[in-house]
Amino acid sequence: MPRPPSAAALADLQAVVGAAGCLTDAAAVAPFLADHRRLYRGATPLVLLPKNTGEASRLLAICHRELCAVVPHGGNTGYCGGATPDSSGTQIVLALQRMQRIRSIDRMNLSLIAEAGCTLSAVQEAAQQADRLFPLSLGSEGTAQIGGVLSTNAGGTAVLRYGMARDLVFGLEAVLADGRVLSVLKALRKDNTGYDIKSLLIGAEGTLGIITAANLKLFPQPQDAATALAGVDSPAAALALLQRLRDATGDMLTGFELMPRFAVEITALQIAGVANPLALSAAWFVLVELAGPGEDLNLRTRLEATLAAAHEAEVITDATVAMSMTQAEAMWKLRESIPEAQTRRGASLKHDVSVPVSLVPELIQRGGELIARLAPLGDMIAYGHMGDGNLHFNASLKVGAAVAEFRRCAPVLEQAMFDLVESLGGSISAEHGIGQLKAAEFARRADPVEIALMHALKRTLDPRGILNPGKVLLSGP
Amino acid sequence: MPRPPSAAALADLQAVVGAAGCLTDAAAVAPFLADHRRLYRGATPLVLLPKNTGEASRLLAICHRELCAVVPHGGNTGYCGGATPDSSGTQIVLALQRMQRIRSIDRMNLSLIAEAGCTLSAVQEAAQQADRLFPLSLGSEGTAQIGGVLSTNAGGTAVLRYGMARDLVFGLEAVLADGRVLSVLKALRKDNTGYDIKSLLIGAEGTLGIITAANLKLFPQPQDAATALAGVDSPAAALALLQRLRDATGDMLTGFELMPRFAVEITALQIAGVANPLALSAAWFVLVELAGPGEDLNLRTRLEATLAAAHEAEVITDATVAMSMTQAEAMWKLRESIPEAQTRRGASLKHDVSVPVSLVPELIQRGGELIARLAPLGDMIAYGHMGDGNLHFNASLKVGAAVAEFRRCAPVLEQAMFDLVESLGGSISAEHGIGQLKAAEFARRADPVEIALMHALKRTLDPRGILNPGKVLLSGP
Repeated sequence: MPRPPSAAALADLQAVVGAAGCLTDAAAVAPFLADHRRLYRGATPLVLLPKNTGEASRLLAICHRELCAVVPHGGNTGYCGGATPDSSGTQIVLALQRMQRIRSIDRMNLSLIAEAGCTLSAVQEAAQQADRLFPLSLGSEGTAQIGGVLSTNAGGTAVLRYGMARDLVFGLEAVLADGRVLSVLKALRKDNTGYDIKSLLIGAEGTLGIITAANLKLFPQPQDAATALAGVDSPAAALALLQRLRDATGDMLTGFELMPRFAVEITALQIAGVANPLALSAAWFVLVELAGPGEDLNLRTRLEATLAAAHEAEVITDATVAMSMTQAEAMWKLRESIPEAQTRRGASLKHDVSVPVSLVPELIQRGGELIARLAPLGDMIAYGHMGDGNLHFNASLKVGAAVAEFRRCAPVLEQAMFDLVESLGGSISAEHGIGQLKAAEFARRADPVEIALMHALKRTLDPRGILNPGKVLLSGP
Repeated sequence: MPRPPSAAALADLQAVVGAAGCLTDAAAVAPFLADHRRLYRGATPLVLLPKNTGEASRLLAICHRELCAVVPHGGNTGYCGGATPDSSGTQIVLALQRMQRIRSIDRMNLSLIAEAGCTLSAVQEAAQQADRLFPLSLGSEGTAQIGGVLSTNAGGTAVLRYGMARDLVFGLEAVLADGRVLSVLKALRKDNTGYDIKSLLIGAEGTLGIITAANLKLFPQPQDAATALAGVDSPAAALALLQRLRDATGDMLTGFELMPRFAVEITALQIAGVANPLALSAAWFVLVELAGPGEDLNLRTRLEATLAAAHEAEVITDATVAMSMTQAEAMWKLRESIPEAQTRRGASLKHDVSVPVSLVPELIQRGGELIARLAPLGDMIAYGHMGDGNLHFNASLKVGAAVAEFRRCAPVLEQAMFDLVESLGGSISAEHGIGQLKAAEFARRADPVEIALMHALKRTLDPRGILNPGKVLLSGP
């Protein structure tokens, strides 16, 4: 339904933001046309940079009137091409990067209002300056913007304790498809007045409205942490360790990341400054983190005792507890460097999937068999947020093997992997979202009633189909 | 748009559920026609009791075809008349009470599937039998059904730590207005595939669909708790105590309930077996609870130390820490008996409101002035979940004063109280919802863009307007 913008429409849009608020020069526009992973390359007549919600509202009103498609754009760190325009050259890019104020912070209420263009790091820092914690954390936090973080319902390493982005929002300000501004920025822990529109906009990848600001939940800063690497013989043993840690430490368990020995080997080999637990005899490693309010909790002693009991019960083969902040950081660096090590090693086939935590061992067993059978040139690297049931289930090309042949396995492996995940009651996109990358697959696999409802909601909130067309939902139905 | 059901339509509905699944006899139907607080009294041609989701689906399909209004009904413990049919005698009541299976429990994944008719107590017990915790807890939990708990996004005493009902749901099964069944019962901590429809149905009070089952989040059972009553001179001091407890104990702080001395006096006087802290010199009391995974956390010692430091800093006037489970229970009984003591004392004017936690002292100061000015025959009893910013802000008739004159103050006081709450960025319904009681007030006060969106969503999910008409949203626009 959207159509190419007329010259008059483009002029109207430019008039709203002025010269400082739009980019048309090819070099300036280029960064907005390709996604982070270089999977997609688009074109646009115009990149718009509104400096406040009022401007964003007037831009959307014009786009709505003119049936002009709009692609919202944040830090461009997404994995599914959600912020990249299509190749038609008719879709306007609306980038929120100039809206980067922290509007207010309420220490006692543990809340903070940030505009969409604030980087995740900037939000974390503003919270920290008030001796508070904004817990959402992910590798690209220096670049990712809070508008994109919320629009994709980002996850990261702290989900086990603090939840996904959606769980960290009190209220939103958003511009709707027709330019109306929804402003519900209240910071209330309890508010049962009507439908939860906020949760609908979060995770909608800019297809139902454009988030311009959010009132975010903060937490007390943890005052102490303890970190360890434990070796286990199998994912089932890792699951048993998770259960023990939960029972012994409850909410103090803030990290539980699983890594296969092979991933640790390639990472320790290639990346400087990472912890190296390979002296431990183990097929799998688990990075465990506890955090809590005060040093008198003796978290390190507590962690050591729990691991000792797990060792006694033959749940773990061995463990190393970090004795300093530096050691703890090296352990986290090991975990966080796996993607980089994988990239340096060569081609990968990647899947971001989740299953109930109880079924992670079965997922690994059967997913490993799929890789061996369907992508035999690859080694399995299934690692990640086991405490959330979310693994990055990848195959990494064996050294010296033929990359083209390996890549040809991708579609068949993906189908088989998604079938497996589906059979285990899991998700084909745990934290990366749908974007354009998985829109067709999602359309094919989603519950028919659920996806019909999503299309109905899309038509209701964006009747002219101008908001980020082709993302999340395929056109239609 | 709904119309009175024809005899044929009623026969079709009865045929779906059989004789065991419908009530027409006046005595059997009577309990479904009045709400818990006896604010409303309705009429119905038929109470339907489907025994499974298939039956519920077929009933809704018939109602949709026949334009027959349906009022979903759970444990009937709501405060706003959300489950009571209107007086026209044309609205069918659909009660979920026969759907009371716990379908499954996954200890390791910390999840449980319950049907809508399970009481909240039954869910708590099923979790406990698996050594897990379903944390949602409220006074009427023995009667309230999980379908109603979710449909009203219930709160209760554990929100500070565990969130509202919406925060405790992985997935839902629901029958839509036309009888289609949405079945997304996955128990995933991460799933970014499309729009969050589940959050939309939760808290919609049966106006967008009828919840038939839910996959609920469980937690490890806390192994230790510590409870205390602290005296403070003012709500501002209570706020300072809250801050100290958060900093010192983080997530172990699971309860922070504020009570004015007057409420404690009338409760200690009238209800047997409650803790009596009146020997402490204080204008306000705070019930504090810590909970954690193991006894080695020494929660009582920790609580004592934090309270001692607060006393040293003149934040609290004094405190009593429970030395036994019996003492802790008596403290909670004091808090939970306030409504009963208020009822026994006489008439009340009640408001369930929330503000940012930081503004609770201002709310109490200014709200107290409103009661003194606009309902001078009442004494202020503002008490409740201060840690969530949610107070039950009531006026209780002075002994011997004229009840009719007092009640006449209600509309003016309510308007002034809601104006005050609104000016503080608060909510006119923190945890009780809208139902029919607050629908007009909500329509008047809501953000116009927000309420227009809610109406649009209602039309999309219930185009014929048959689902719980007149609740949450007034008819129209």
